[in-house]
Amino acid sequence: MSLLKSLKGENSGPPPVWFMRQAGRYMPQYRALREKHSFLTMIQTPEIATEVTLMPIRQLGVDAAILFCDILVILETLGVKYHFKEGLGPVIESPLHHPDDVLRLPTHSPQQTLSYVSKAIHLTKSALTVPLIGFCGAPFTIASYLIEGGGSKDFKKTKKWLFEHPESFHKLLDKITDLSIDYLKMQKKSGVDALQVFDTWAGILGYSQFLEFSLPYLTRICEALSDIPVILFCKGSSVFADDLVKAKPAAISLDWHGSLSKVRRSHPKLVLQGNLDPDVLYAPKEKIRQEACTILDQMKGDPAYIFNLGHGIKPDMSVDAVRFLVECVKN
Amino acid sequence: MSLLKSLKGENSGPPPVWFMRQAGRYMPQYRALREKHSFLTMIQTPEIATEVTLMPIRQLGVDAAILFCDILVILETLGVKYHFKEGLGPVIESPLHHPDDVLRLPTHSPQQTLSYVSKAIHLTKSALTVPLIGFCGAPFTIASYLIEGGGSKDFKKTKKWLFEHPESFHKLLDKITDLSIDYLKMQKKSGVDALQVFDTWAGILGYSQFLEFSLPYLTRICEALSDIPVILFCKGSSVFADDLVKAKPAAISLDWHGSLSKVRRSHPKLVLQGNLDPDVLYAPKEKIRQEACTILDQMKGDPAYIFNLGHGIKPDMSVDAVRFLVECVKN
Repeated sequence: MSLLKSLKGENSGPPPVWFMRQAGRYMPQYRALREKHSFLTMIQTPEIATEVTLMPIRQLGVDAAILFCDILVILETLGVKYHFKEGLGPVIESPLHHPDDVLRLPTHSPQQTLSYVSKAIHLTKSALTVPLIGFCGAPFTIASYLIEGGGSKDFKKTKKWLFEHPESFHKLLDKITDLSIDYLKMQKKSGVDALQVFDTWAGILGYSQFLEFSLPYLTRICEALSDIPVILFCKGSSVFADDLVKAKPAAISLDWHGSLSKVRRSHPKLVLQGNLDPDVLYAPKEKIRQEACTILDQMKGDPAYIFNLGHGIKPDMSVDAVRFLVECVKN
Repeated sequence: MSLLKSLKGENSGPPPVWFMRQAGRYMPQYRALREKHSFLTMIQTPEIATEVTLMPIRQLGVDAAILFCDILVILETLGVKYHFKEGLGPVIESPLHHPDDVLRLPTHSPQQTLSYVSKAIHLTKSALTVPLIGFCGAPFTIASYLIEGGGSKDFKKTKKWLFEHPESFHKLLDKITDLSIDYLKMQKKSGVDALQVFDTWAGILGYSQFLEFSLPYLTRICEALSDIPVILFCKGSSVFADDLVKAKPAAISLDWHGSLSKVRRSHPKLVLQGNLDPDVLYAPKEKIRQEACTILDQMKGDPAYIFNLGHGIKPDMSVDAVRFLVECVKN
């Protein structure tokens, strides 16, 4: 339970460790399952989602599980269909083209549309001895997907939308925020011990845009979920850290560009998570150990620190490297 | 000459303004020329390079010219062939595969291999009434191109190289740094008034990697060119600003994610350049004015500030929008 202690700033042992995308394509067992089921089937079938969620606990010995799911499931509460295309990533079947499209989006309760998530949480919790982290995408990131129709290289449609129709963009963010709060409350009620909000695309924003289109909605989520620890992660959190603090999250998860000790100096009591460059997992073991130690030395004895990567594990990384990293942190 | 005043921290008028990629594909006149010549022919023919360099001075009224050239020309001093493929970007014809390849790289003097750059500088200076900025790529960025063989989505080869063969990576950076210093000295001798170093790919690095593989080489360049203002630009400069300062450049050019006024508070005398989100140029004019004013208000009366974008102008932006932005800054 070291994760929950760290989240309170009260950990006296070695730092807890878990990874973003710790259950995924890099694992042979995951790939074997994936050959039999589509990605959507896997996240929508509680038994399979549970099985995948548990994989890294058994194989890596990490200190927390994160529910196997996807940030895009929230689209189901907006009546928007999506699927995942091999090698291409997510495809939104009816992306938003016009401000009126925002007004036309229905809203369905997460309790109804996403009950499979509740079931997976129940199932997972009954089999789990470490804390379970639930999650959702940040409103800005979900809005970007809805507008771009999937991932993007330049996010031009999103940028144009927020410049040309800021009021409609805010309406969209509002809608997603309300639903995300409901969704996270449902996850909490179902038994997760902590939550993480992923603002994967915040890093494309200019500073004033981040303050206008991302931060207020992250703040609303943190306020609404004040009785469970909420961890905020952005690609861009190294730049935005001082402002993310204002949302009053339980913790900030730092991308791999910034210095944990610099953020620690500015925010002595802030719970910090991160921030090893994921690509270190491509390195020889001696280098993995060395890079992990650089971070562990900086954060030695810190009661409010959680070891993690600065972003997710990549599909072509090796389980052996990840396991070795866990051992480095533990010893 | 407001640019040179700002670079000394002594500007008493409105801030000077220029843009990265201010001469390029977004201009109809440029595209007309480009139809007749390859990109390489354009940068290697002093008369054409001069014509292109002058385009934005005449059409936009910016306060500085930046030599029309490419950071990859330094590869010619390493005997490495490259070309630009329509829609794909640069292609390095014989990328580095093995540490031994670094040892085998020849070095040729920029005076011989890049004399066309000198000629273009001479020609441009004779036609120019505003300062001329010369430039080169940062050693880390050039090394990445040499290893990846072009641009990259994940820079995996570069990351693997620096983890597996750090000493060879340093040798490569060393070689590029020596040549870049020679090259910049040649540009200075030919008449440029200031220099900018582009570390376009520094933003993929983890913090400790930036300190090891980028910063020391930027520092060496700044030290060697101490008698001409050197501006440092990284994608990532918002995160790395406090460390970039240690290289003692004349100025730091900020990407669009960070807050200029926050950096100003930490570094009261540092010359700052930037950092409007380039995508603002896709916005309606009223929004362009508003976003420019946000920055201009923050930096009002600052004697050490240069208006610029946080990155380059994109090919599908409109000349009209860019011209309007210049007017906003001037008025």
